[in-house]
Amino acid sequence: MIGARFLEDLSVGEKNITSSVSVSAADIVEFAKNYDPQPMHVGQGVNAGVDSDSLIASGWHTAALVMRLLVDSQPFGSTQLLGLGIDDLRWPKPVRPGDTIAAETEILSIRRSRSQQGYGIVRMRVTARNQQGEIVYGMTSNLWVPCRNP
Amino acid sequence: MIGARFLEDLSVGEKNITSSVSVSAADIVEFAKNYDPQPMHVGQGVNAGVDSDSLIASGWHTAALVMRLLVDSQPFGSTQLLGLGIDDLRWPKPVRPGDTIAAETEILSIRRSRSQQGYGIVRMRVTARNQQGEIVYGMTSNLWVPCRNP
Repeated sequence: MIGARFLEDLSVGEKNITSSVSVSAADIVEFAKNYDPQPMHVGQGVNAGVDSDSLIASGWHTAALVMRLLVDSQPFGSTQLLGLGIDDLRWPKPVRPGDTIAAETEILSIRRSRSQQGYGIVRMRVTARNQQGEIVYGMTSNLWVPCRNP
Repeated sequence: MIGARFLEDLSVGEKNITSSVSVSAADIVEFAKNYDPQPMHVGQGVNAGVDSDSLIASGWHTAALVMRLLVDSQPFGSTQLLGLGIDDLRWPKPVRPGDTIAAETEILSIRRSRSQQGYGIVRMRVTARNQQGEIVYGMTSNLWVPCRNP
């Protein structure tokens, strides 16, 4: 546990690597039953001809798993990761049962908020890869970060 | 249940409205414990001073809930909603316990794939509002849709 990091403590180009998480077929199906119950994600569908070999994680499951990796890796120390929005989110390859994914982050830009004194916006690129090094997910997150000296 | 809709069946400007979903504090905390365990989402944190009044849903929870609304509303009939990526995702207001959210979709553009014959890419704007009509979530989804006539 490290302390809070503020806007002034962050640097453009700063990188961070998360731990990894393995995804089981049961995990994929459980998430999908709640949030994305399509045959390719829940592994059933009489007409779709989907079998367990073709089961893939919902893209939103991948996004949620990567968020957990980011929270646990604390790139901003104990400062919360509060996203205003996301740009350029892509899922170039699906996540399949048994895959292990890990993410890396890089700070692209840092600026003070024009509308609210004491805060800034950090643009951070997030890239997640599977155990073969293939990119399964990428996005640019716009994060709201408090300043040490408003 | 309606049949599959293909690329040729879709029109730019076409709109669709989903059903709605209510979000409880328990729902918010359960999702966050798994995927985004930060004080503002799990309602605890000795140093953060977060109480139940300030509990807000993880943005990824909102995204997942809206995906469920989209899947259930079947804007493309029984054709699966397979996203290649997302642009311009924003969370302008937080989702709070007791909120009810619903989404509307609008097709922005339709084009044939240059790389894979028989498929096309549909850009669809998704906007979700709470019970007060405030936008809590917006994004543009790039969806992979099969053609009827490859």
